[in-house]
Amino acid sequence: MEEIIAKKWIRQREFQGMPCLEDFELVNETLSESLKDGEILIEAEWLSVDPFMRGNLFNSPDSPIMPGSQVASVKRSKHQDYPVGTKVVAYVGWRDRTICNPDTFPQPVFFHKLPDFKGLSDSYALGALGLPGNTALFGIEKVLKVKQGGILLVNSAGGAVGSIACQIGLLKGCEVIAFTGSQEKTSWLKQALNVKLAFNYNSDDIGETLTEHAPNGIDYYFDNVGGDFSYKVLKHMKPHGKVALCGAISTYNQSSSEKTEPLLIPFDYWTFIYNHVIMEGFRASEYESEWLDGITTLRDLILDGKILPNETIAKGFEAMPEAFINIFKGGNIGKQIVKV
Amino acid sequence: MEEIIAKKWIRQREFQGMPCLEDFELVNETLSESLKDGEILIEAEWLSVDPFMRGNLFNSPDSPIMPGSQVASVKRSKHQDYPVGTKVVAYVGWRDRTICNPDTFPQPVFFHKLPDFKGLSDSYALGALGLPGNTALFGIEKVLKVKQGGILLVNSAGGAVGSIACQIGLLKGCEVIAFTGSQEKTSWLKQALNVKLAFNYNSDDIGETLTEHAPNGIDYYFDNVGGDFSYKVLKHMKPHGKVALCGAISTYNQSSSEKTEPLLIPFDYWTFIYNHVIMEGFRASEYESEWLDGITTLRDLILDGKILPNETIAKGFEAMPEAFINIFKGGNIGKQIVKV
Repeated sequence: MEEIIAKKWIRQREFQGMPCLEDFELVNETLSESLKDGEILIEAEWLSVDPFMRGNLFNSPDSPIMPGSQVASVKRSKHQDYPVGTKVVAYVGWRDRTICNPDTFPQPVFFHKLPDFKGLSDSYALGALGLPGNTALFGIEKVLKVKQGGILLVNSAGGAVGSIACQIGLLKGCEVIAFTGSQEKTSWLKQALNVKLAFNYNSDDIGETLTEHAPNGIDYYFDNVGGDFSYKVLKHMKPHGKVALCGAISTYNQSSSEKTEPLLIPFDYWTFIYNHVIMEGFRASEYESEWLDGITTLRDLILDGKILPNETIAKGFEAMPEAFINIFKGGNIGKQIVKV
Repeated sequence: MEEIIAKKWIRQREFQGMPCLEDFELVNETLSESLKDGEILIEAEWLSVDPFMRGNLFNSPDSPIMPGSQVASVKRSKHQDYPVGTKVVAYVGWRDRTICNPDTFPQPVFFHKLPDFKGLSDSYALGALGLPGNTALFGIEKVLKVKQGGILLVNSAGGAVGSIACQIGLLKGCEVIAFTGSQEKTSWLKQALNVKLAFNYNSDDIGETLTEHAPNGIDYYFDNVGGDFSYKVLKHMKPHGKVALCGAISTYNQSSSEKTEPLLIPFDYWTFIYNHVIMEGFRASEYESEWLDGITTLRDLILDGKILPNETIAKGFEAMPEAFINIFKGGNIGKQIVKV
């Protein structure tokens, strides 16, 4: 029997500020040659890198492997529901080969068969038809509960979640104000996604932009950024305006560890209280029972040409750290993904 | 016609950190000798000092008079609805005599006739039967919407709002966990208000206390304090736990002016997102149409012996700055008030 060698990326030290290549190490792992009942051997085809992976919450010293999902193909199987050749989406971390038992995952957020994408790329399972897509959909529908005619602000709008959130907002009849970090992404939002009110926070003053384009304030704020950006936005929230707190990418690289010192952010208590702002944190994975329905909804919107997914693809398993770092540099348009 | 001299307390410079006596100046103002149609002359009998008065929001350079409400008696009148002798509650600031036109106030939050208190002290109009009481009531009923059996955390629980919030929480069938800043107040909460789980944040570790007494987490958090206190509490919120953000007294004395630099607070994005925390800012004054109903509800609860109001009374209009500073030192039990 041949020996099965898996490659995996581990975080070899705690992140300090912006992740860098030296934080990562590619190591080999010899997998068991024989599967137990219920187990499958999968090989990654597409892997996801996402901002949340920076969080220490997901990087305990006990588990140095970088976390995340992949689209993989079953190569050996001792599970009758997953014969060889089955495509799955599995949250097994940055690994090229993995032995796992599908029944041990909290289903379906962390493990599911690739649904019928009707010809769309399998890789979308990690983007518009996966966690980022459902995050955008559930954030808009279940958290913000947007109504037609409302003003929706989306930041990190050129990214995997933000670009889908903008498009769903438009479909719901909202006026969408999008912020992103480069002229290139701003142009893409305007031209490809039809988000007319797209701005570059590196050159457009956030406060002045909102005073001009949302003089009566913002109803809904889909926040991927947090920190100083949100401090500025808060002053423009309408009374009873709602914030869906999805992420805080502006802060992820600020502190080395939540354990040693808390992150400090600017916060405007007066406005929050005076304007009766409502802020709600959420994770798409809470909505487990609706996970596959969300994907089907998004798939059909893409097939109907109502949502345009976009990917930035890095080549090779070896490129994972670079691809990950690229997100924090704002180098991606749409979903940053790695093709093995 | 005699000359009418009013005394008023003005803030003679911007607060820097904790307010001190030198920040205030007592000045005389000569009032018009003749009232215009619709005007009344009122004389303060009881005056309120509240933490929110520290805020620069309410202290613009254009209006250096300290803001706030008083119970006053009509001394002269050119308004048929307010004959001489009428008792009113008026948001006219730290003044002993005032000429005003009742019809120019946003009613009834900022001006109303003293309701029939059925023998209870007029001064309650500034505490349990006024802004603090309605803040507690509306915060619990309209923002937190507490349910029987839920775990409610109240901080600044020895103060005007917190002490009423604890009691309403108990009446609603919640398990109430109260934090205050002294052993004296903790004992008072236990003995007088029957809040069995009362703790002193100066001697009891917040995290350890919550781990022990709310091992499954907190459902409802009535927050008067903000800042570091809330950072610690947040880690103990149940999934979908709700925060009613009422005030942030821990931060009021930290920055001299929101205009020059934003206040920094510790904030735990991961927990907020992961536990789907919902935070809602509110002011009691939003619920204008229910203002007097709230007061009636609270009055009847007091008359039935179900809510015990408490006051710390300073004597004399001259004592207002001291009484105000006393709040920030935690010197009051229940509502801090000034009797002219």
